[in-house]
Order: sequence, then C-alpha cells, then structure tokens
Amino acid sequence: MPKSKPVPGKPETLLVALGGNALIRKGQEGTIREQFENLVVPIRQIARLSRTHRIVITHGNGPQVGNLLLQQECCSQVPRLPLEILVAQTQGQIGYMIESTLDNELMKLGLDGKRFFVTLLSYVVVDEKDPAFQNPSKPIGPVFSREEALGLPYATVRTPAGYRRVVASPKPVTIVEKREIRMLVDMGFIVISCGGGGIPVVKESRTFHGVDAVIDKDLASAKLCEEIGVDVFVIATDVEGAALWYGTPRQRFLSRLNPEEARKYLQAGEFPPGSMGPKVEAAIQFLDSGGKRAVITSIRHIEDAVAGKAGTQLTRGDSA
Amino acid sequence: MPKSKPVPGKPETLLVALGGNALIRKGQEGTIREQFENLVVPIRQIARLSRTHRIVITHGNGPQVGNLLLQQECCSQVPRLPLEILVAQTQGQIGYMIESTLDNELMKLGLDGKRFFVTLLSYVVVDEKDPAFQNPSKPIGPVFSREEALGLPYATVRTPAGYRRVVASPKPVTIVEKREIRMLVDMGFIVISCGGGGIPVVKESRTFHGVDAVIDKDLASAKLCEEIGVDVFVIATDVEGAALWYGTPRQRFLSRLNPEEARKYLQAGEFPPGSMGPKVEAAIQFLDSGGKRAVITSIRHIEDAVAGKAGTQLTRGDSA
Repeated sequence: MPKSKPVPGKPETLLVALGGNALIRKGQEGTIREQFENLVVPIRQIARLSRTHRIVITHGNGPQVGNLLLQQECCSQVPRLPLEILVAQTQGQIGYMIESTLDNELMKLGLDGKRFFVTLLSYVVVDEKDPAFQNPSKPIGPVFSREEALGLPYATVRTPAGYRRVVASPKPVTIVEKREIRMLVDMGFIVISCGGGGIPVVKESRTFHGVDAVIDKDLASAKLCEEIGVDVFVIATDVEGAALWYGTPRQRFLSRLNPEEARKYLQAGEFPPGSMGPKVEAAIQFLDSGGKRAVITSIRHIEDAVAGKAGTQLTRGDSA
Repeated sequence: MPKSKPVPGKPETLLVALGGNALIRKGQEGTIREQFENLVVPIRQIARLSRTHRIVITHGNGPQVGNLLLQQECCSQVPRLPLEILVAQTQGQIGYMIESTLDNELMKLGLDGKRFFVTLLSYVVVDEKDPAFQNPSKPIGPVFSREEALGLPYATVRTPAGYRRVVASPKPVTIVEKREIRMLVDMGFIVISCGGGGIPVVKESRTFHGVDAVIDKDLASAKLCEEIGVDVFVIATDVEGAALWYGTPRQRFLSRLNPEEARKYLQAGEFPPGSMGPKVEAAIQFLDSGGKRAVITSIRHIEDAVAGKAGTQLTRGDSA
C-alpha cells in the first residue's frame, strides 16, 4: 500500500475528478433523472470520505456540452453562444447536480450543518501560443454528414461516426480562482470546481478573454492539485484502473505504477489517447509536481481506492 | 441623505441586484459580445465600490433562460431539461460573464490580487404549499401560437404577444448557501450568487429536490440580504427609480420613500406587477427585516445611488 505521511492533526486533502460516466452511463439516454441517480454512487462515497479528509471535486462535461452544441445547431432563433459560454453553462448544470446530491448525502449521514460546501465557477488560463491552437485535435459535440459539415462555421474532423467539430485542447497554465479555492479548502470547505476542465481563457496584457477550446479535465485537475496542494488525486472513471494490453486476452491490470514505468507504457502506446492516456499523463504530472499519490479507479470504488485497496495506485518509487 | 451608521472600521456591505438590462438592452439581439460590453457599465462601478465596501452581486436571467427554453423546444434530439437545470445553466453563463468582467475591471484599477472573489451556485428553498404553485403566474420563455401552445407539455398563458409558458413564482424561504456566503463576505470576498433568483428547490423530509418554478430575483436578493446581514440593498434596473403616475404627463419621480408610503403606493397600484412592483416589495421586505437602506436605481448610476445622490432611496422613517 502506498505510504503517505500526513501531518499529525491535519487531514489529507483529496481531489476527486469525476468522469462523464458519473452522470451518464453507457447505453443511457442521459435524462436528468438518470444523471441524478448515477451521481449518488460516487457522491455517497465522497460524503463519507469528508469525515476524514478535505475534499475537492472536479468533473467532466463531454455529453452535456455536446448536447448544448447540438441545440445551438438546431435552433436558429437564438444567438449562437461561443464554446466558453457553453462550458460555463455546464459548470452551472453539473455543479448544481453534484452539490445538491452531496447535500442530500451529507444530510443522510447527519453531517448537514457540519460541512461547508460551495460550487465555484472556474476559468483556466491557457497560452495563446500553445501549439494545440494550430492543431485542433479534440472532437466534440454532434456528428454531421459531409454535406452538413461543409456548411458549418468552424473546423470539423472526420471520425469513424462521421464529421465532428474539432477544437483545440491546450494545456492548462493556471486556475484563475486558485487562491480562493486553496483558502476555502484550508478552512474545511468541500469545493466543487474546474468543471469540464474549466472555462478556457487567454490573458492579453491585463485582461482575460474566452477562447474556443476544451481543456482536458484531468490535466486541469492535476494543475489545480499542484496549485492548491492536494495530497491524493483520485481519477474516477468507468474502468477499474490502467491495464497493459487493454481489451485483449493478455490484458494485465496494473495495481501499482511509478512515474517512470507509467511514462514508458504511455510512450509505448499502451494507454490510448482520449481515454486512459490523459489520465495517466495527469497522474504523472501530479507526482512530478510533488503530489503524494494518484489513483485511477472505478467510480464505484473511490473509497477503496483512497484506502489503497482498489484502482491503479501511482506513487513515486513504488513499482508494479 | 439617508443616514447609515457604519460600525467604525467595518465597511458597509452592499448587495447589488443586477436586472436583465445589465446584460441585454432594449432593441439588442443579445449576442455575447453585446452582453459583455453592457456589463462593463455596472461592473466598473462595482469594482470601484469594492475599495470602500463589501460586495455581493446577484443577477436576473430572464432573456437567457428564455433562450435556453426556446432551444429545448427547437431541438428534439436532446433530452429535455427541467427548468431548475436551465436556471443552473444561466447561473454558470451569467456568473462567468460577471466574474470575468469584474476580474478585468479590478485589474484596470490595480486591485487584482488584492480582492478575492467567487461565483457560487445557489439554490433557494421554496414552500411546496406556497399558493403560487396553485396559481402559476409568471410567463417565461418564447411566444407560441395557440395551436403550438396546445401541443406543449406544460401550462401556458395568453399574453398580448401570444401564448407563453407560465410557471409558479413562489416566495423564497431560505438561501441554502447562506452560511457560506456570509462567511465569505465577512472575510472580504466579493461574492456573486443567487443568479436568476436561485435554483428553486423544495425540502422533503431530509432531502431537497428541484421544482419547476422561477423565484423573483429581487425577492431572493432581499432574503439573502436578511440572511447574511447586508447594510445597503441596491436594485439596479433600466429606469432611474420609482415614480408615481409612471409613463403619464403627471409622472413624479420619488427620490425618497419610507416603507409606509411605499406600501400605500404599492396597494394603490402605482408600481406595476412584473416590473417596479416586486422591486418596491423587495425593498420593503429588506427594511422590515432590519436593513438600513434600499435604493432602486439605473444601472448607470449605481455609485451615485450608493452615495445617496441618485435613485429612489428607501429608509425607515425617511419621507418623500
């Protein structure tokens, strides 16, 4: 089991990054009722963990921002909104769903009134010179036919399913609200923030403005961990953890991993881009920046993963 | 000029409730660029006021939630979202726009890094026995023909423009995040919250759930003032203040008003429901709950109104 040495009397800080499946499971249509029901699984565990740990929650927004984009395409009567605004809308939507579910679960534990919690809108600075802007790579939102795609006001990419809008996915440079988040976490608040990787902005002389981009939520979470001083970074997703030869008869689950091994497997293409790849990359970045322990785990096993009993545990010096 | 007696050394707390015209002016289409430009007018003043006052900002969401509703109607490919979720989305959207505009204006004043500020999602408890649920009265969102209205899955009302969805507008009972907001304001944070009157929820035994309703944002703001202890409640709108015989040749501007007079004029129908009426009602409620001073003013004259030099100033005992 990974060793972490907590400061006596000071609880460890966990950041739990919830993947899209925390809200919409494979095969579901994604109604609001389904999303609320699904959220209970991770949030109940997080509520229990709040008895012993300081907690930060971040979340993805893929299906939700995709739906908002689809509505933009459908409905010509309403002015189009830029992507940054749609990300902001999903922070409102998903943040509310997480917070109210947490509220209910804390009440069931008799912890209402004993925990302060807030959902903060967050925007994240990216570098306008990031090479990702020259090479948009992240497909988002609805699928179009070739003919439809030609009429769209933005770049598309051909995917197996059809044409999709493609946006830049630049690296997060800094979380604008980091001071506020750090202060609130230090005071014992449960903080929900950095939804959908954060609202992407660039800094121009002394002002900010939003940009059409989607920041990877695990990389944004790793940056937040670094900037506020998180001890344990939990990446909760729809599989039990990282594996070699994933999806083949040889598949081998990795229960422990150190950054050197992780980097080696990543370079060998063991962890596909767009799924396990960025999670392992985010975990490495967290350890490189001084983090104690990262865990990639199923949404169902967050508590066990925090206890070192589930998921892929990444620590410096620990080996597979 | 109204007298307020600040505690020596403790700055007064202002709550500024921004009306819809802070974002979209009459005659505008309501593009995001327009909304950002419009916001500079109130937010620049609020940034300057933050040098001498503690600040809470609330905001309306009428046009924005209307657009989201319209998109729901347009686009059958995406699961329909309940109204509470649309309100949450507008808290994300508008909260981000206000916060990033504030951020820019604080930078221009050289106050960046000297002010902490956060945008908090907020939900507001209403009473499921509120008579408003039996008598939905608030028209929201797009206008339909009679034929279209018959096919809609919810109640509509006939307005001069056509048929519109009608929802309940229950009274706010309590702001769920009041403790957090009060604590942050006491620490000197600028807090943006209670957008669109708050996400409406009812409490059932020990859990919350959302309801289809829209809470009046000025009444929700008055409740927040009461619960966190605000000194001066600024209701910023598109007119200079309250007037008698409004819109007639006899129109008389009211520069001062006490709660008794205000109540009398309200009952006499001087302040129409859906526009000046709820603002005056919110101001009265604020003074009744112990607030020092409420001001109804134009978005352009927030600073002057705080200084007692513009708008309709409401205080106990002061007379017109």
